[in-house]
Amino acid sequence: MTLFLQTIPVSEAVRIAGELSGPMPEELVPLEASYSRVLARDIFADIDIPGFDRSVMDGYAVRSSDTTGAGEAIPAMLRLTGRIVMGGRADLSIGRGECAYIPTGAELPEGADAVAMVEYCDMLGDQVLVKKPMANGENIVRKGEDFSSGELVLSAGRRLSIQEVGALAAVGKKDVPVRRRPLIGVISTGNELITVESVPRGSQVRDVNSYMCGSFLQSIGCDFRLYGIVKDDRESLGNALKLAKNECDGILISGGSSKDDRDMCADIIRENGEVLVHGIALAPGKPTIIGSLGNVPVLGLPGHPASALVVMMIIGRPLFLGMTGEKEISKRLEKAVLASNVPSTKGREDYIRARLIDGYAHPLFGKSGLLNTLVRSDGIIRVPAGSEGLEKGDEVEVFLW
Amino acid sequence: MTLFLQTIPVSEAVRIAGELSGPMPEELVPLEASYSRVLARDIFADIDIPGFDRSVMDGYAVRSSDTTGAGEAIPAMLRLTGRIVMGGRADLSIGRGECAYIPTGAELPEGADAVAMVEYCDMLGDQVLVKKPMANGENIVRKGEDFSSGELVLSAGRRLSIQEVGALAAVGKKDVPVRRRPLIGVISTGNELITVESVPRGSQVRDVNSYMCGSFLQSIGCDFRLYGIVKDDRESLGNALKLAKNECDGILISGGSSKDDRDMCADIIRENGEVLVHGIALAPGKPTIIGSLGNVPVLGLPGHPASALVVMMIIGRPLFLGMTGEKEISKRLEKAVLASNVPSTKGREDYIRARLIDGYAHPLFGKSGLLNTLVRSDGIIRVPAGSEGLEKGDEVEVFLW
Repeated sequence: MTLFLQTIPVSEAVRIAGELSGPMPEELVPLEASYSRVLARDIFADIDIPGFDRSVMDGYAVRSSDTTGAGEAIPAMLRLTGRIVMGGRADLSIGRGECAYIPTGAELPEGADAVAMVEYCDMLGDQVLVKKPMANGENIVRKGEDFSSGELVLSAGRRLSIQEVGALAAVGKKDVPVRRRPLIGVISTGNELITVESVPRGSQVRDVNSYMCGSFLQSIGCDFRLYGIVKDDRESLGNALKLAKNECDGILISGGSSKDDRDMCADIIRENGEVLVHGIALAPGKPTIIGSLGNVPVLGLPGHPASALVVMMIIGRPLFLGMTGEKEISKRLEKAVLASNVPSTKGREDYIRARLIDGYAHPLFGKSGLLNTLVRSDGIIRVPAGSEGLEKGDEVEVFLW
Repeated sequence: MTLFLQTIPVSEAVRIAGELSGPMPEELVPLEASYSRVLARDIFADIDIPGFDRSVMDGYAVRSSDTTGAGEAIPAMLRLTGRIVMGGRADLSIGRGECAYIPTGAELPEGADAVAMVEYCDMLGDQVLVKKPMANGENIVRKGEDFSSGELVLSAGRRLSIQEVGALAAVGKKDVPVRRRPLIGVISTGNELITVESVPRGSQVRDVNSYMCGSFLQSIGCDFRLYGIVKDDRESLGNALKLAKNECDGILISGGSSKDDRDMCADIIRENGEVLVHGIALAPGKPTIIGSLGNVPVLGLPGHPASALVVMMIIGRPLFLGMTGEKEISKRLEKAVLASNVPSTKGREDYIRARLIDGYAHPLFGKSGLLNTLVRSDGIIRVPAGSEGLEKGDEVEVFLW
């Protein structure tokens, strides 16, 4: 009886997970549905933005040379020749000693090279008194200053943010090339599991992992399909894996909780595909399985919800982000000062749940089965494999949930 | 001609925005669709979790008193009486000098009070050698230790995280009471605006704000409906506002860019409802309008995309989160050291876009119309109203996008 799994270092498991699958095919979605989707292609500006010299203030379009030396006491006096309207061609021309009213965003008229803010001007009949010297280019955005035609605006692999969707609008991308969201099948195994709507008797427990796995997958941009609770027997497990393989792009399976059940799961994957990793030097999360059925990646998680979540974060993220195509991963690390000592075992990476309060990371030493500390935690602290623990006062990085 | 708006302090505007509307009505959604939704009611545990004393390790259920003084040299020798199975009642009873194999998650048998991990045990015939003294309760979670029946598990107002969805599963919430997502109508005004699919001529610009507003609303848990580009005339604007008021729970309108257009928008809101704020001591974002049409809140943003985004973040968030019902707002502040001086004007709050690199906040002094710096920025730095600026080396908080 082999009681110990062959474990590999976390960094090696992360590399294998990240390389297990390539990005999903591309699809076009309307711009208004592109927020939070992963961009599939580099995007270039189709035009100069702005397409004209533009005022960024409400004020008066002037020739800056006319305002040299102007001040409160001796303002420059300019003749108001007209009013520029938004969205129309600026058909005025500003000669020496002249100015025109210009609203924010309008096109600078010919001859003008600056805009004097209304706050620094007074009206006197048809004359405008400018009480401040203006520099050439002041309060103006030049044609192409934001993006020039042909310039790279966004790189493929970005999960689109609010302002990136705005940039896509500016460069005319009504339909956006994004990666299809991978569909991941979620399987919970364990003879002790019952559905959420049931009331546990004896040592039964409700299926928590199906819903945590689904939420995790959503959080990183995947769709999911629940295959429910599967009994820990060879036939049930084999059938569920085959069904999910045929219907999905990837599989996330959690449990069984015991050593024998985990071996059975790995055996079935090996018979129908490949097991690349079975055992990681990671606590919690040692009995993790990384494999594939055909070209469908499979991640096997421990059955305990808190352990399962750690493995999802550390191994599942790189694996499934490889499929979503997201490259520049959103910042999820927060620096903090450790509020108490964290003991650890050399030779494996330990992840300790922590709560962040005013810049301090408070380790929560809950037993791995507790949802309570999981809910109260903000993320996890990594204790490197070479370390025997961390000390109170150490600066640590908290990997936020 | 009134060139200056009556401005109120940011804190006052935030308070007014937050109180403008109450949370949406409650609805039930299936647990698997509850991730990222806002919980409408406090949730209590319906049962003890776990419902039994549970092992958190693969190992041997023992009486801890049998292992007193055990060590590598002199292990405790216990007779293996059986094997506990997952999900079944532990019908074994452990007497003095006895033990039973127990998998992770299984019910502790009567008589036992600890679990010795397999790693610290050896088999010798039907005897188990335990090489470590076990404490009462070691490697065990007690009945009700995670959540006890009737205990508060989650409070109303939480936007459900991965692990919170897990906690709901554990307490049997197959259907989850959440707040309905508010539907917000989005209107872009400005005679200079053209649709994204058009190519600008002269001083026309593509409508960026409709898509930025929609993305922003999604990011905070709202749905949105685009009403497209509305011309800056009284009739078009009035009709669009009335239509959106009848179909939506709130309205987000951006532009017109000029003073007159802004006044027109405020006038129309006043004629059909109420204007509470017109002008905030905020840069960018001074010409913001907060009002309502009947019981439908309206937020009027400046036309420039970068200014619009700042106002969405500072004023729009509290306003629309009041509707989504989210109470404990996700952490969006990151501490950083200012990498260069930031000048400011006393008497107003300035928000400067910044990029975060290795703990330093680099201010990006882009002109307010530039999308380029907006895309490159990670968030904004607040310069308080009483300050004349911030100095290089100051510790600042970056409000992340």
